[in-house]
Amino acid sequence: MSNRILGIDPGIGICGFGLIEADGAKARALDFGAVTTKVDAPISSRLLELYDSLVQVFEETKPEMVAVEKLFFSKNITTGIVVAEARGIVLLVAEQKGLPVYEYTPNEIKKCLTGYGSATKTQMEEMVRIHLGLEKKPKPDDAADALAVAIACSFSYQERQEKYKFSNSRKEKV
Amino acid sequence: MSNRILGIDPGIGICGFGLIEADGAKARALDFGAVTTKVDAPISSRLLELYDSLVQVFEETKPEMVAVEKLFFSKNITTGIVVAEARGIVLLVAEQKGLPVYEYTPNEIKKCLTGYGSATKTQMEEMVRIHLGLEKKPKPDDAADALAVAIACSFSYQERQEKYKFSNSRKEKV
Repeated sequence: MSNRILGIDPGIGICGFGLIEADGAKARALDFGAVTTKVDAPISSRLLELYDSLVQVFEETKPEMVAVEKLFFSKNITTGIVVAEARGIVLLVAEQKGLPVYEYTPNEIKKCLTGYGSATKTQMEEMVRIHLGLEKKPKPDDAADALAVAIACSFSYQERQEKYKFSNSRKEKV
Repeated sequence: MSNRILGIDPGIGICGFGLIEADGAKARALDFGAVTTKVDAPISSRLLELYDSLVQVFEETKPEMVAVEKLFFSKNITTGIVVAEARGIVLLVAEQKGLPVYEYTPNEIKKCLTGYGSATKTQMEEMVRIHLGLEKKPKPDDAADALAVAIACSFSYQERQEKYKFSNSRKEKV
């Protein structure tokens, strides 16, 4: 059984998205890109712009589940606040569409794709490209990040399914 | 000319709101309270709950402008991320209703109401009570905070109007 997973890398200026179709360990990219908002507009107006664009992305890509990158603030908290506000909009749209939402930290995504949590950006992009059988690395970077979280979701989804099968087969034996 | 200002103190578990009618230096509270979300539900589901409740508050209170407290992170960044996500929803709803949005930091609100940025919570609540001519301090605290930001907005709105009048009268003299 294959799954349409929409990965999202939240942002206010640029918000990446990537739709994959995952079947077990295999996956292919169906669509990816980024939505942008006007830099010089007030934040509330940019959040509405983001909301409207995301509603359109969800309607066009018709995902079955959504994977969103969790925020991690190490340096700039002020920028982080705005990104979190944008992330609130992403989660809202997913929930309004009645879709299951899975969240992953940057480290979880890196570990999932490369086996270790401190992989470089280049290593990550290369893993996304190889895993999805793409000729070039996906552009913009935000779309590549969104595809990465979608892949992480497909791996962990597969794991959940296997655990479920295993626990069911154990039950049958009892 | 009086203005209906809806103040909002953003939060995920509890989000305070307070509607005031301000006429120059005078103001009265028309409505205040708080909307809550289920503590044990996933964040995305709580954000949708908040969105739906806020849409209802905006429709019932019919404000002409919205005043929202800006976030200030000093201690808990993790809690702060969720509050910022909730704040994104507040700004979105205001923008969807086509209302002007004004934002104030906690210090700006304190300075506006008491004259200094380091006023205590009790001093602030007392100023809100006196300014709005209420017998008791508004409950819950989140509603009092929301009324405080609405009052701050009414003061700064009055200031903006006066500056505008002054600059227009100067123009006439030229």
